[in-house]
Amino acid sequence: MTDTRDAATIEHSLLDLADALDAADPLHAHLDAFADAPGVSAYLDGNSLGRPLKDTPEKLAAFVRDDWGTRLIRSWDEQWMVLPMELGDRIGRVTLGAAEGQTVVADSTSVLIYKLMRAALRHAQETSGTRTELVIESGNFPTDRFMAEGVAAETGMTVRWIEPDPVLGVQISDVVAAISERTALVSLSHVDYRSGALADMPGITTAAHEVGALMMWDLCHSAGVVPMQLDAWGVDMAVGCTYKYLNGGPGSPAFAYLRREHQGVLRQPIQGWWSAADIFAMGPQYAPAGDIRQLLSGTPPITSMLAMQGMLDLIEQASIEAIREKSLSLTDFAVRAYDEMLAPLGVRLLSTRDAALRGSHVTIGHPDFRAVTQRLWSDGIIPDFRYPDGIRLGLSPLSTSYAETLTGVLAVRDALESHDR
Amino acid sequence: MTDTRDAATIEHSLLDLADALDAADPLHAHLDAFADAPGVSAYLDGNSLGRPLKDTPEKLAAFVRDDWGTRLIRSWDEQWMVLPMELGDRIGRVTLGAAEGQTVVADSTSVLIYKLMRAALRHAQETSGTRTELVIESGNFPTDRFMAEGVAAETGMTVRWIEPDPVLGVQISDVVAAISERTALVSLSHVDYRSGALADMPGITTAAHEVGALMMWDLCHSAGVVPMQLDAWGVDMAVGCTYKYLNGGPGSPAFAYLRREHQGVLRQPIQGWWSAADIFAMGPQYAPAGDIRQLLSGTPPITSMLAMQGMLDLIEQASIEAIREKSLSLTDFAVRAYDEMLAPLGVRLLSTRDAALRGSHVTIGHPDFRAVTQRLWSDGIIPDFRYPDGIRLGLSPLSTSYAETLTGVLAVRDALESHDR
Repeated sequence: MTDTRDAATIEHSLLDLADALDAADPLHAHLDAFADAPGVSAYLDGNSLGRPLKDTPEKLAAFVRDDWGTRLIRSWDEQWMVLPMELGDRIGRVTLGAAEGQTVVADSTSVLIYKLMRAALRHAQETSGTRTELVIESGNFPTDRFMAEGVAAETGMTVRWIEPDPVLGVQISDVVAAISERTALVSLSHVDYRSGALADMPGITTAAHEVGALMMWDLCHSAGVVPMQLDAWGVDMAVGCTYKYLNGGPGSPAFAYLRREHQGVLRQPIQGWWSAADIFAMGPQYAPAGDIRQLLSGTPPITSMLAMQGMLDLIEQASIEAIREKSLSLTDFAVRAYDEMLAPLGVRLLSTRDAALRGSHVTIGHPDFRAVTQRLWSDGIIPDFRYPDGIRLGLSPLSTSYAETLTGVLAVRDALESHDR
Repeated sequence: MTDTRDAATIEHSLLDLADALDAADPLHAHLDAFADAPGVSAYLDGNSLGRPLKDTPEKLAAFVRDDWGTRLIRSWDEQWMVLPMELGDRIGRVTLGAAEGQTVVADSTSVLIYKLMRAALRHAQETSGTRTELVIESGNFPTDRFMAEGVAAETGMTVRWIEPDPVLGVQISDVVAAISERTALVSLSHVDYRSGALADMPGITTAAHEVGALMMWDLCHSAGVVPMQLDAWGVDMAVGCTYKYLNGGPGSPAFAYLRREHQGVLRQPIQGWWSAADIFAMGPQYAPAGDIRQLLSGTPPITSMLAMQGMLDLIEQASIEAIREKSLSLTDFAVRAYDEMLAPLGVRLLSTRDAALRGSHVTIGHPDFRAVTQRLWSDGIIPDFRYPDGIRLGLSPLSTSYAETLTGVLAVRDALESHDR
């Protein structure tokens, strides 16, 4: 139990600090771009579902009235056919460090992981009899792991598991110990969905290449919040979702990056009409597109591709480097607030203290967090619960203030203190 | 060349007939539910992209403001998690003749075809060494054919092609001649995307079962406009899209039906976290859901699943049987207008004259139709062009009047007559 007068002083100084940081925040004005959420005093789950912009409702309504309702089928020719590639190029430019023609928006992250894993393993089988292993980490997001299991079983490959450090995630040395001339593909997450650990993408990619393996990155928790250089770092393939820090809305489609030199060589197996060289030729045999379009399959979910456009504009205006700066500062501030408010209550810090090794969420643990989260959610304080007893404080830099971050941490403290065990 | 005075008389009598049919149409009031399209005098492409309802813009805007923007991540628990199954059940009830728990909305038609074909062929491989053939028709929609080619190659199966009648489509006798105890799966379209030919679903399904094969139907051009009895007819699996006669908007997700007895037995290969027994357990190994949810993979595209709900309401109010009645009458009227206005100009009828053997579009052909369609589209008359020289008159019964149908046919006539060859 903390001393009451001390606690009040500490809280006061944190409140002052939050105000000072907000006042000095060069991105502060962007907060105003996001839609109001009546009754919500802290939204710390932008790492699961980013918020809509203020003008998103009218943009969707105008899309229905004009593009769909009035131009009707003509909109496919006029604008929708190219949208998967246009949006992909924009994501590539604003956060991936990818030149044009290497990124598309399509399907879900799970489906795109399947496509790319299958493409990589098929290529290994066709070009080598000895590359029979898919290397993945046991702490990777479930869909990545489940897909690796399934794809390996389908193709007769073996999954080789890396056991990452629970706080620091996968290290280069872990990867080096797991890979060999038998490795076909290494598949890892850039930012760990639990701890927020940021992997060394250039170092690990280089290590994979040194044994002749392909390297695939899951960017779900880094796209839109961490600057990357996929082209310069030699990354072979990547996927990511657009409903977290790209604010595309619930279930907005994923994106996939496939390095130009692999296009026309690596082929994904769900060879629908949108992946054909000429979509409307409808000829007797399938002829694959030789470019990034081969990653598509069916008709793209246009309505779900609209909302992210406003966020891509904002990211471009703010710059991904400035967003990363604020992310580092926000997560540092969250760790400080944790130290002063939550550590004394027995809450564990499950993320690293080194901001440079973190993505944009900070994870804390306590046995009561499942019940605490339920209560917070009904009170309009919204962090993210992670089984079995974690709370993720997801800090989306363009939509989250320091004051809001502190409101969330204080609410966790209050809920823990008043929680009836 | 037709005699001018005669032509005027014929046109006048067709106009009178259209007015009389519209006046007697029991579904006429539903036309008013659809959004106005300024500048469009005939939209005959509801078979490619159904129109939005008048209240769709505000529904999408309210979704962004309230469900996404205010309830935020909480909406997943409150309503979105179950949406793929809820919408599937509704589609099953209003048009498929499917009891609950057998239909989901997810992905694109192409991805769902891949999942179901793979599930069927894997099952055949596991239960029989001799069922090594996938039977499909050469006139099936490209994505179905391309997927059959790819899936067969992946699994070491052989594709056996049926050559359908170009106007009447696949007959039972064609299927019987192609299937045998070597057949693993028969995959056909219910309504041919070019001719509009309606296949004998119960008869062909029974024939497939008589040799022990599984039967899969592509319902893209029949869902929402043809009543079916998938349960009663013993259909094993089916897919369809929701952006045609279900008016879900561009790229709205597809649906898949998997008969209850196959659930937990047939397994699709894209085993993402949404297909797991417990989505949020995130355990070390994949454990598949034993129910229809196993057909899911990644996070469902919620925003793209909203618009179809209003159309499902309308179909339920009108009843699929009444919609089919109007569809038969509309396509009959289109054929009559063709006979009187277009046949004299050398236009070919590429659909059957027997309404009972047709879906809801009528296809006509003429060497000038590519250029004609371009001109019509810019004039606000919107049929569908099909390579190489076809025009599909797609007649979506709830949103299309007889007068509008005639406007379209007369515009085709005018464009042909004035076309500079």
